[in-house]
Amino acid sequence: MGDNKIKNDSITRQEDDFAQWYTDVCKKAGLMDYSSIKGFIVYLPYGYAIWEQIQSYLDKRFKESGHENVYMPSVIPSSLLNKEKEHVEGFAPETLICTIGGQNKLEDPLIVRPTSEVLFCETYSKIIKSYRDLPKLFNQWCSVVRWEKTTRPFLRGSEFLWQEGHTMHETEEEARTETLHMLDIYDECGKNLLAIPFVKGRKTDKEKFAGAEETYTIESLMPDGKALQSGTTHYFGNGFAKAFNILYQGRDGKLTNPFQTSWGVSTRLIGALIMVHGDDNGLVLPPYVAPIQTVVIPVAQNKPGVIPAARELYEKIRNSGVRVKIDESDKSPGWKYSEYEMKGVPIRIELGPRDIEKGVVTLVKRHNGEKNVLKNDEVVDALPKLFKEIHEEMYNKALNYLLEHISEVHTVDELKTALEKGGFAKMMWCGEQQCEDKIKELTTASARCMPFNQIPFDDTCPVCGKKAKKIVLFAKAY
Amino acid sequence: MGDNKIKNDSITRQEDDFAQWYTDVCKKAGLMDYSSIKGFIVYLPYGYAIWEQIQSYLDKRFKESGHENVYMPSVIPSSLLNKEKEHVEGFAPETLICTIGGQNKLEDPLIVRPTSEVLFCETYSKIIKSYRDLPKLFNQWCSVVRWEKTTRPFLRGSEFLWQEGHTMHETEEEARTETLHMLDIYDECGKNLLAIPFVKGRKTDKEKFAGAEETYTIESLMPDGKALQSGTTHYFGNGFAKAFNILYQGRDGKLTNPFQTSWGVSTRLIGALIMVHGDDNGLVLPPYVAPIQTVVIPVAQNKPGVIPAARELYEKIRNSGVRVKIDESDKSPGWKYSEYEMKGVPIRIELGPRDIEKGVVTLVKRHNGEKNVLKNDEVVDALPKLFKEIHEEMYNKALNYLLEHISEVHTVDELKTALEKGGFAKMMWCGEQQCEDKIKELTTASARCMPFNQIPFDDTCPVCGKKAKKIVLFAKAY
Repeated sequence: MGDNKIKNDSITRQEDDFAQWYTDVCKKAGLMDYSSIKGFIVYLPYGYAIWEQIQSYLDKRFKESGHENVYMPSVIPSSLLNKEKEHVEGFAPETLICTIGGQNKLEDPLIVRPTSEVLFCETYSKIIKSYRDLPKLFNQWCSVVRWEKTTRPFLRGSEFLWQEGHTMHETEEEARTETLHMLDIYDECGKNLLAIPFVKGRKTDKEKFAGAEETYTIESLMPDGKALQSGTTHYFGNGFAKAFNILYQGRDGKLTNPFQTSWGVSTRLIGALIMVHGDDNGLVLPPYVAPIQTVVIPVAQNKPGVIPAARELYEKIRNSGVRVKIDESDKSPGWKYSEYEMKGVPIRIELGPRDIEKGVVTLVKRHNGEKNVLKNDEVVDALPKLFKEIHEEMYNKALNYLLEHISEVHTVDELKTALEKGGFAKMMWCGEQQCEDKIKELTTASARCMPFNQIPFDDTCPVCGKKAKKIVLFAKAY
Repeated sequence: MGDNKIKNDSITRQEDDFAQWYTDVCKKAGLMDYSSIKGFIVYLPYGYAIWEQIQSYLDKRFKESGHENVYMPSVIPSSLLNKEKEHVEGFAPETLICTIGGQNKLEDPLIVRPTSEVLFCETYSKIIKSYRDLPKLFNQWCSVVRWEKTTRPFLRGSEFLWQEGHTMHETEEEARTETLHMLDIYDECGKNLLAIPFVKGRKTDKEKFAGAEETYTIESLMPDGKALQSGTTHYFGNGFAKAFNILYQGRDGKLTNPFQTSWGVSTRLIGALIMVHGDDNGLVLPPYVAPIQTVVIPVAQNKPGVIPAARELYEKIRNSGVRVKIDESDKSPGWKYSEYEMKGVPIRIELGPRDIEKGVVTLVKRHNGEKNVLKNDEVVDALPKLFKEIHEEMYNKALNYLLEHISEVHTVDELKTALEKGGFAKMMWCGEQQCEDKIKELTTASARCMPFNQIPFDDTCPVCGKKAKKIVLFAKAY
């Protein structure tokens, strides 16, 4: 294994410069391009197709669990955004503001949505009248704008694509259940579609969403040892409902504020996919999210019979429901191998004159370079099984890496060492923000989450020596 | 027929006030709500679900014909928009302009995209190098903003949802073919999905898109006699390519500008659906675009066995792939009939104790109120056939109305009379904008298109008396 890989010299090696490798892959795999506006990228067909696969998976899960899609305005009047104090303070510094419309100065400037809590609240205040109207489970697929200073494709952008769910519930309990249920759906998307394991947990108060009572997160771990917040769900209590005067008549006839959640994942998941699975030959996509699951490459295609045989195989595979492509272009087979390795296509099928004679094909797996010869008429049946195997191998590899990089630490020195090695440092914490701040100061790491699994292993917080209350995972993060 | 309809008194009658009827349906059917920003609406679940059906139909057709989805920034630097003179002049008066980002004044203000030609051109200038890179067939689903003075839900909004295709071709011929091919796809969408017949034709120079060489249109006719431009495709020649310095190395080795098209349809199609098919009881949706194709309503649902029987039928229908809903709420059957009539659900199935005894159901068609009794175990097989019949009846009804309202006119007086009656006035025209302007002045009607079918029926233009060159359809329009 490995010997049949064609080294791709057009991108930086991971060990030489991981950040540059990342940018190289984004560009060379045709995922994105820069626009002339800083932080606003162009999602090129191959990158957008990955997003469409993610959308399709999640949209189905959202709808199955009773959610409905809507579309809210892309701009928010400043007066509306100002209604919830903590929320506006969280977002105001990074807003893009429209001040002129139809050649006139706007009295109430419009903010390009950074998130849409206030717009959903405004609508909910009009359409929720009775407990019979609850729950309301709305979701929106859209882009949002946050004026960022430092930007990187997919990971942090001034504009990105996401979904934002905003729900209203009769009881606190139901809203809390929703908050955790949506986190589970995100987690499953990692496990079943992206082959990415997440650590699930609750954010500390310092790290929670502006305006939320509680924020939950899925955190993934990148090969450079840094954590990536990959999705969040928020429980709002009834704070926004009070600020926006959302009232419903309860079963007891009294007017009451409903309880609220919101939750979102974004094109940042594409960034996670690139980093978690990629290698020095480019992207490595798990089969279920790959826009092209298999590519058929005719070898010595000018020889009689090669193209027809390749097309026949391509058609058979296509009719079986696999996302397959055939490349009949006049580029060399070597160039094509390299190109589809760069694009991370999970399985490459090579078919030349000798293969045709023998009734076989050569099948190469992208994630480990493994080469297998299969009977031509067994390919269609073999593919689903191979996809499953590849997916599991990729997931398990990423899971092992994650588990190997969660270090239990008992002292500040151990914390520092663990963070220098990379990964999560698991520490018992007193619950005071001071200690969080101190760790940030010493290490640049932040509290990623308080994992759901809370079995105490220390009595005191290593930073202040006071009684420890919670297990927290610290990490340097994107 | 008709006697089994429950009159819905909650909306204005069409003949009393068509415009008010329209707004009432938009609201009462739960399609949309107003936001606090003028001209920006909220697409509520039922309205958005219709858009999702339209998207799903068109996206499939786009992909089958080789198009790829991308996503471009939602804002355009003013300096970039200014690159193509005619284009910017067309859009500048109705732009929404961002002047502050991250609390700083922007040197180059950002315009919320009214359309994205210039962004696509910027990207194409970077990624098109050789004739091997052509054609490029990109499409984008997004929202756009045009600061409108007079707005109406779905028909004219300061923000609306649409798709915009932007393609680049090696030859003029190929680009022209694309322009007409996409018009055909829109036309088919009307025929196969929306049950709306369109008149296809070319826009006059006065009415064409800012910056285009030629604009083609699909025009539909509303029951109030006004035309609705329902989609357009544009042939740009290589004007933008020159302005944006898009050059590729041709087969002859020389650097050449490619030829360009763009094309789009929007949520305006929802407005067409509402008006073309709706009646005094609300929305009437053709089956293939209806988010709910059939609703099962248990009658006397507290009687033993009714709910289980209704659920069994519902499950059978659902498993057959029909978009079906069951309403078990504690509202009366009469309320439910009225509600799903308002929502335009094509087929209502009533199931009560006596029906269960006899092994039958009562099936009511929304579009004509026809009531049929069917054996319970024949429903699943009957539905696809019924959908086809209903679709055809609705399409033919709309087609007859359209054909009855195209009047050939030979004098200005005949033109006036025809336009007062409503519909299209078909006139031979000299080709001069003066005469178009004159007609607008006299009647408020505009040239909707020069239909593809051009069999001359007059020698002179009725307005100026000069030699007639083209058949034009004039109409008052939305």
